[in-house]
Amino acid sequence: METPKRRRSATRARLLEGALEVFAERGFHGAAVEDICERAGFTRGAFYSNFGSKDELVLALFEAMTDRLLEQITALLPELATQPGTLLDAVLGLLDDAAPDQRQWHLISTEFTLHALRSPEAADALIRQRTVFRQRLTELVEEITRTGDLRLSVPADQFVRLVIAVHEGARAQSLLEPDAVPAGSLEHTFLPMVLDAVSRP
Amino acid sequence: METPKRRRSATRARLLEGALEVFAERGFHGAAVEDICERAGFTRGAFYSNFGSKDELVLALFEAMTDRLLEQITALLPELATQPGTLLDAVLGLLDDAAPDQRQWHLISTEFTLHALRSPEAADALIRQRTVFRQRLTELVEEITRTGDLRLSVPADQFVRLVIAVHEGARAQSLLEPDAVPAGSLEHTFLPMVLDAVSRP
Repeated sequence: METPKRRRSATRARLLEGALEVFAERGFHGAAVEDICERAGFTRGAFYSNFGSKDELVLALFEAMTDRLLEQITALLPELATQPGTLLDAVLGLLDDAAPDQRQWHLISTEFTLHALRSPEAADALIRQRTVFRQRLTELVEEITRTGDLRLSVPADQFVRLVIAVHEGARAQSLLEPDAVPAGSLEHTFLPMVLDAVSRP
Repeated sequence: METPKRRRSATRARLLEGALEVFAERGFHGAAVEDICERAGFTRGAFYSNFGSKDELVLALFEAMTDRLLEQITALLPELATQPGTLLDAVLGLLDDAAPDQRQWHLISTEFTLHALRSPEAADALIRQRTVFRQRLTELVEEITRTGDLRLSVPADQFVRLVIAVHEGARAQSLLEPDAVPAGSLEHTFLPMVLDAVSRP
């Protein structure tokens, strides 16, 4: 039986899905709340009973994506925590696969970051969201180094920041030149070297 | 004496400078050719006798920036070619300093890359421009490894792609959280480790 709570959650999910498509087509600034509602088949009222603003919807998109990713990583842990190199490869694979559509995801996350560079409120919200994600990844790295009896010569948070920087920078190149830079190729080539260089038994 | 050629070049330079400001304020899509002309103090006629379109102006901005950067790197070569680590640090320093304003530069170059992901013509032009830049950096890396009698275990072009990916990915983090990620910090911490891992005497 469909409860009001479940219906509400389905409405949110459809709005998020519709938004991702509309953003990819028209850009964050070009996509009006009306366009998103039309795509998802809801009224403005349904939108605003779920999200305070377009910014809030994008942050909910980020949260859904990073939650899914963190769950998947956590599921890998029991098996791979003692093999940091293999685990890193698996995590990098998840980064590529986590978004159903890397191009859509790159467009909206990059556009929202640019928006945040011009809007202090959006910046605060984005920094909070990214900080939570990074902290959880950092805890994972720390757990792995403990399990593997490794010590890192750099703070785990710095390594996590590097992984994110390489992933985001490489994704722009992969999307622009998919044949020259297959998705994940720079990450898989170079990040294990860095992990190796910063870990000591 | 001011020749027509010199005047033309001064007009281009003022248009480029004005454009960088207007783009940073209003975004690539929000900045009209009229706004750029007004900022630089020229007519639309002056604009179109220098640039075929807004896209062409942005590509000219990229070219001016990368030419300046490559010149500065080439000037460092005679002294530092035999010290790959020191040279890498110096090149990373130049990447940070090459743009008079990293924020403006990040906004316009990232926005144009997003535009290229939606416009095949812009993508072709951007790929051509970036390819020339990468090829010249790759030649430099090859020259350095020859001089230092080093061999790279990865193609020099891949290392150059990594440097660009880390720089662009890290710049987004630095601009969003300047205190947590000082400009250049991720690059200076991790890229020398990678260079070390991929070079063999």
